[in-house]
Amino acid sequence: MNGAESLLQTLAGAGAEVCFANPGTTEMPLVAALDASPHVRAILGLFEGVCTGAADGYARMSGRPALTLLHLGPGFANGIANLHNDRRAGSPVVNLIGDQATWHQAADAPLSSDIASLARPVGWVEEVRSAADLAKAGARAWQACFGPPGRPASLVVPADCQWEDAAGPAGAPLLPPRPGPAAEATAGAARALQGGKRSFLLLGANALGKQGLTAARRIADRSGCSVLVETFAARIERGRDLPDFPRLPYFPEQASQNLAGARVVVLAGAVDPVAFFGYPGQSSRLVATGTAVLPLASPGEDAAAALEAVALELGARASAPAPDPPRPLPATGALGVRALGQTLAALQPDHAIVVDEAATSGLAYHAFASGAGPHSLLQLTGGAIGQGLPCAVGAAVACPDRKVIAFQADGSGLYTLQSLWTMAREGLDVVIVICANRAYRILQAELGRAGVAAPGPKAQALTSLANPDIDWVALARGFGVPASRTDTAEGFAEALRRALAAAGPSLIEARIG
Amino acid sequence: MNGAESLLQTLAGAGAEVCFANPGTTEMPLVAALDASPHVRAILGLFEGVCTGAADGYARMSGRPALTLLHLGPGFANGIANLHNDRRAGSPVVNLIGDQATWHQAADAPLSSDIASLARPVGWVEEVRSAADLAKAGARAWQACFGPPGRPASLVVPADCQWEDAAGPAGAPLLPPRPGPAAEATAGAARALQGGKRSFLLLGANALGKQGLTAARRIADRSGCSVLVETFAARIERGRDLPDFPRLPYFPEQASQNLAGARVVVLAGAVDPVAFFGYPGQSSRLVATGTAVLPLASPGEDAAAALEAVALELGARASAPAPDPPRPLPATGALGVRALGQTLAALQPDHAIVVDEAATSGLAYHAFASGAGPHSLLQLTGGAIGQGLPCAVGAAVACPDRKVIAFQADGSGLYTLQSLWTMAREGLDVVIVICANRAYRILQAELGRAGVAAPGPKAQALTSLANPDIDWVALARGFGVPASRTDTAEGFAEALRRALAAAGPSLIEARIG
Repeated sequence: MNGAESLLQTLAGAGAEVCFANPGTTEMPLVAALDASPHVRAILGLFEGVCTGAADGYARMSGRPALTLLHLGPGFANGIANLHNDRRAGSPVVNLIGDQATWHQAADAPLSSDIASLARPVGWVEEVRSAADLAKAGARAWQACFGPPGRPASLVVPADCQWEDAAGPAGAPLLPPRPGPAAEATAGAARALQGGKRSFLLLGANALGKQGLTAARRIADRSGCSVLVETFAARIERGRDLPDFPRLPYFPEQASQNLAGARVVVLAGAVDPVAFFGYPGQSSRLVATGTAVLPLASPGEDAAAALEAVALELGARASAPAPDPPRPLPATGALGVRALGQTLAALQPDHAIVVDEAATSGLAYHAFASGAGPHSLLQLTGGAIGQGLPCAVGAAVACPDRKVIAFQADGSGLYTLQSLWTMAREGLDVVIVICANRAYRILQAELGRAGVAAPGPKAQALTSLANPDIDWVALARGFGVPASRTDTAEGFAEALRRALAAAGPSLIEARIG
Repeated sequence: MNGAESLLQTLAGAGAEVCFANPGTTEMPLVAALDASPHVRAILGLFEGVCTGAADGYARMSGRPALTLLHLGPGFANGIANLHNDRRAGSPVVNLIGDQATWHQAADAPLSSDIASLARPVGWVEEVRSAADLAKAGARAWQACFGPPGRPASLVVPADCQWEDAAGPAGAPLLPPRPGPAAEATAGAARALQGGKRSFLLLGANALGKQGLTAARRIADRSGCSVLVETFAARIERGRDLPDFPRLPYFPEQASQNLAGARVVVLAGAVDPVAFFGYPGQSSRLVATGTAVLPLASPGEDAAAALEAVALELGARASAPAPDPPRPLPATGALGVRALGQTLAALQPDHAIVVDEAATSGLAYHAFASGAGPHSLLQLTGGAIGQGLPCAVGAAVACPDRKVIAFQADGSGLYTLQSLWTMAREGLDVVIVICANRAYRILQAELGRAGVAAPGPKAQALTSLANPDIDWVALARGFGVPASRTDTAEGFAEALRRALAAAGPSLIEARIG
């Protein structure tokens, strides 16, 4: 057995089932070892950001890490943006990064670089030095990626450590349990939340599953507290029969206004909220200085269990079922963001997985979606755009029995459009809705916020995707994904129905104003 | 004047003429400042690797740095692979990377990360801390990127340093001269090269221009020494009327064999050559242990001038004009790599810029191209694939009066295919020849070298681009570039003639066996 085989057997033994790969020469022994590892599926991405974003989506839906297989520093670098999102989502991922043979590193061959310096900003990293240690290093990486919170763990594996002999696989590592609620924090939160609607409960991480949301509903019914959901959730369960809470707004002045009257903010799986960006004259934190902030459970802790404990402490019973929100109906007429969101929410099937990188085009959807059937919503946690399509790949691999809807802004989608090919090759059940407004609309808004009332020609050109317009139908076909285009609500409804009825991926270019 | 304006005026004053940009919220003041900087052209890339690769191509053809404008750590990370190539090419590039406002960094907002840790592996980096210092920091970055050798210089610019008031631009920095030849090294090289064909002269960097190549020819004619060219050149002048020397082969056993009889290897703009990858039982260095290695000029020094000094020292006169190599004729019949290379060399116009990321599909071209008209050849210096199309963008921006031919492998081209849109938007005169063999052919060869005689289904799948085939004609049209497909030599010749006759970009999918 060589080092590569000892590593893959270790990871397979620990539970690895999928490897999203874009290998090169320094990973060839690992590629060969995949064929000797019957339980690890190998999926090719044509660009590394597809692999790392897919691993994130896979982890969000399965709770398990996927492997990625990447080619030295530059190949890894192409995956960093989505590893940044992985880290912010708390997703466990194990990156296997080939490197020059240990004895070849001093030669500074063309592809050599400092991989660890690239990897440190996105999580745990270890540089392997011998084939004999490779299996154990794999076990350490598997353990490290769980955190808590979950994160990318990157293993730099020199080629000779892969091809040289190794004794055998290492045992599966012990995994750290997700810490449960501390009695003191529970009691404190329960006391704090009894202050009526000026007491806020901010939900994040695993508080956004059915268990956490239901407990939060009970707490709010009992105490009258206000409940908010973090702005960008790695995963939130939504739809009819699930408690629905407002989301903390994106723009900091709106978010601060939402929290303005708060006496206390209890954090359940969320962090003390901060502005996405700093603006002149505004503060970093969104909670006012005079408001107390009380951590109940950090994102790495079991916030759902903590909420249940608080509900118990408060003597909160099961909530009466809320009146069902109205089921949205498909819109008619011109296709704007409202008609788009309404129609999508009306037609998405029960138990769909909606991957939301729709940016400004998705804002209207969320209100309608509370009346849709139960579904999982996955959002852009780290702000590094180009996450939606890869995340949809990973979610579809994790949940082959559920429809995945990639609700995708056009600008963001172009960073990692190679995802479409992986969807086609693997026959993944993904419907891609491209919100084609031919602009980086959020940047046009941000220009205004930066005081640029009348953008000059360069600012206009740098925030526009027009001239020429992108033809998404052609791009999809180029990657083997059937596609259609529409600019009416009726046309969108028809295209969406057709796409949802088909097996395998298909794309709809929704041209909106 | 704000910090952003002071920075851009400083850089424009130093000579910056182009900014390849993919900005976000933290770069809005710099975007606005571009409109106030009439001499800096702003060019949008839909992915950051397009911007950094374009800056490389621009530097190779103009000798001047371009600016890039990138969005925090994740945006920068998407540009790292081509900055790695930039660094290996010795290309001066100035990266302007927006960051969170200084006072917002402690908040660890979703897009925050350690940008400097990401930037260090690819060159010089400085984190700006005040608007007052921004202009001077820009001057330092401009100076730093020239090296020598040239390299990426990355300036991390917090948003508040852009929007706050600044006094004004800084003066243009003094640029370090490229060090010329030392008399001692010249005399030593002249002595060493007099040993006949067992004395080798290895050319790289600026030895590969007309001046250096001509001097090397004179030296070889006088001394009988052997001359080789480094395997991957940032830029080499080739074609009729220019001296042509064999290239050091890519595979280490072939390269070592080429150098096996050497008594001494004199390095003129090249480094002591090493294997691209380490293989079991082979050594890192390609020069045998008993062979002396004599540095005449490092890649950052003026190797062309050093060669002229050596020629003078040897009393070498101007060489008699070599008999013109045969002009290749277009091939006929089936389209394989040989017919492709021959036809391209036959039809490429004089003074073309050929960007070679054709990988295995390009090997046959180089022998034919010595008989083509004079042209510049740009190659993949750092091995980070996805460089060809972006590099062609930059070369076309630098040289609007020359035809650019992107001679492009299909696998590599898919990493940064968004380049096509920038070519269309800017109306760049680029003919893209996609060598569509539907495989990572080099990896299939490397699997064999790694001892995998019969690749299993996963190894096959991970090295194949088939199932489904990529439709490059559709992809090109999706980005607004006209395209056609052919699988015969005659069809390729016809498509190439048509594409070369047209203005603006066009793509040919050359389907080869």
